[in-house]
Amino acid sequence: MKKAAVLVAGSWGTALASVLADKQYDVCLWSRNEQQVKEINEQHTNQRYLPNATLSSLIRSTTSMEAAVVDAEIIVVVAPSHAMRDVMRQCAPYYREGTLIVHATKGFEPETLNRMSEIIREEIPSSAKHLAVLSGPSHAEEVIQKLPTTVVVASHYKAAAEKAQDAFIHPYFRVYTNPDLVGVEVGGALKNIIALATGLANGLGLGDNAKAALITRGLAEIARLGTAMGSSPLTFSGLAGVGDLVVTCTSQHSRNWRAGYMLGQGAKLDEVLERMGMVVEGVKTTKAAHFLTRKYQVEMPITEQLYEVLFNGKDSKMAVEDLMVRVKTHEMEEIVAPQYASWLE
Amino acid sequence: MKKAAVLVAGSWGTALASVLADKQYDVCLWSRNEQQVKEINEQHTNQRYLPNATLSSLIRSTTSMEAAVVDAEIIVVVAPSHAMRDVMRQCAPYYREGTLIVHATKGFEPETLNRMSEIIREEIPSSAKHLAVLSGPSHAEEVIQKLPTTVVVASHYKAAAEKAQDAFIHPYFRVYTNPDLVGVEVGGALKNIIALATGLANGLGLGDNAKAALITRGLAEIARLGTAMGSSPLTFSGLAGVGDLVVTCTSQHSRNWRAGYMLGQGAKLDEVLERMGMVVEGVKTTKAAHFLTRKYQVEMPITEQLYEVLFNGKDSKMAVEDLMVRVKTHEMEEIVAPQYASWLE
Repeated sequence: MKKAAVLVAGSWGTALASVLADKQYDVCLWSRNEQQVKEINEQHTNQRYLPNATLSSLIRSTTSMEAAVVDAEIIVVVAPSHAMRDVMRQCAPYYREGTLIVHATKGFEPETLNRMSEIIREEIPSSAKHLAVLSGPSHAEEVIQKLPTTVVVASHYKAAAEKAQDAFIHPYFRVYTNPDLVGVEVGGALKNIIALATGLANGLGLGDNAKAALITRGLAEIARLGTAMGSSPLTFSGLAGVGDLVVTCTSQHSRNWRAGYMLGQGAKLDEVLERMGMVVEGVKTTKAAHFLTRKYQVEMPITEQLYEVLFNGKDSKMAVEDLMVRVKTHEMEEIVAPQYASWLE
Repeated sequence: MKKAAVLVAGSWGTALASVLADKQYDVCLWSRNEQQVKEINEQHTNQRYLPNATLSSLIRSTTSMEAAVVDAEIIVVVAPSHAMRDVMRQCAPYYREGTLIVHATKGFEPETLNRMSEIIREEIPSSAKHLAVLSGPSHAEEVIQKLPTTVVVASHYKAAAEKAQDAFIHPYFRVYTNPDLVGVEVGGALKNIIALATGLANGLGLGDNAKAALITRGLAEIARLGTAMGSSPLTFSGLAGVGDLVVTCTSQHSRNWRAGYMLGQGAKLDEVLERMGMVVEGVKTTKAAHFLTRKYQVEMPITEQLYEVLFNGKDSKMAVEDLMVRVKTHEMEEIVAPQYASWLE
């Protein structure tokens, strides 16, 4: 039987383990938490992260990285962005060249601003040609129920992307390939910022019209930074761009939207993070993107306003007003600027 | 005092009348329905279309086209698409050259497949240089509450777009200009098809992941037809494209989504239209787009499946499966096709 390792048993890791089990992989789910490992092996549940789901008997869990990774055909990594380097460093001694690594983490390394695939390549250089990212509009809570979902796998190398596609594709889990690794990583990370911002606006009492405006301008600023970082603008019109952005900003399942909503209702950041009980990637990503805008010299007004709210104590009502209301009287739609050249007088 | 005419008193017409009243226009809201005219003039309400809203005392209503239009500085037309020609024909005798006409109707003329601005130009040729469209993510239910909203006005002529911008712009109602009249009209019309399709999917029990996939592919097929019809692809990344699409597919206020949802739950089309009690533009637009795909030779898979469900009795579960599930095993993300040329072997 084919074997797959999934590194860390959060909600998305567990949902992807479940897809692989449906593909008849013998799945080993690695976790540092002995209690969780015991629960998965004995109860076939992971209540904290995916309440009410029963896991396949093909999923076993272990605290031993060696036991998880050895003989795996595919290693799936879904560590939180700040833990990615540490997890990869633990994995490195057991990595056998040629094994596919697919990561599904959405964020940047806080200290270095590295993308996740850059960290993996640094810690496991021999994985460079066998590395892909999986992203797209895919709430774990729906995937575990086998509700139809579409995702993208991207890699610099065609063979790696197609291998990842073969591993995961299933009638309820459609996997498309995309050669733009950078764009798929950047789109996935930055959408969490816009989800926080739309949550904030809704928490302040703004409605669906304002949310749609923030999503539209958010997509424009994601594409602006992404393109400056070397990705193709087309990727942001696809599943890992607009698709993932929409689902994160409008779904009841979105952690980042919920965190923003609480902030908009007046809660403090510390309180919100404590109440969530899970990682809210958008908070760290806002800080990373704030530095990336400087590095790449691009404007990201939503990101900047959110940065001020999260880290400089700006009043969230003022921030949203600055975004929505205090614009110049005669503004042209920024995103369509090249069209203005041909306007009839 | 400046005067504005608003032709027909549906929910969007009434909401736009309210914005103009907030801009200190003396607004004359034209309706064929004497009962409604009386209600607006005496109760300052329009219960059937905007329950619970109190209208400004600057809004009066009349059944006389002449009284509505004469001396108006701006004529706003929000007739249903199938009634646009008739309303414009009634308006024509009273039109004075130079008066701005702004339409906010999202659809095509069923018989001719004409865009709304084409109908207006045909019926009132002297309005050609004074014609703009207003579109974007803007539920009437939120605008009437003065919740922050952003819209686009587009015209072939810069002066007309800027005049429309000046007429409507308000701190809660941000108006951007765009020179791409065709794109803004096409985006606004076609998004109703995708809203019906996402409602259908949700009615069948599919979740937010599937909805995001349909929105992403929907945007691609809207842009495909729009570009073939002469609009700029950039417009579909803006407020009248992705912005309006998102709000229509994800908001509780969306009529088209609700109609699709009922269909997905097993209701017949006739039943749904009767229960809605208001025009569901997406149904007629699906038929129009079905013929436009032939005329312009573009593929619109979501539109085609919906057409089969609405007009050829196809089972909606089969249609959604055909969209979501029965794809080739090795599919690349269609929207990013140009990127594949540079893929590393």
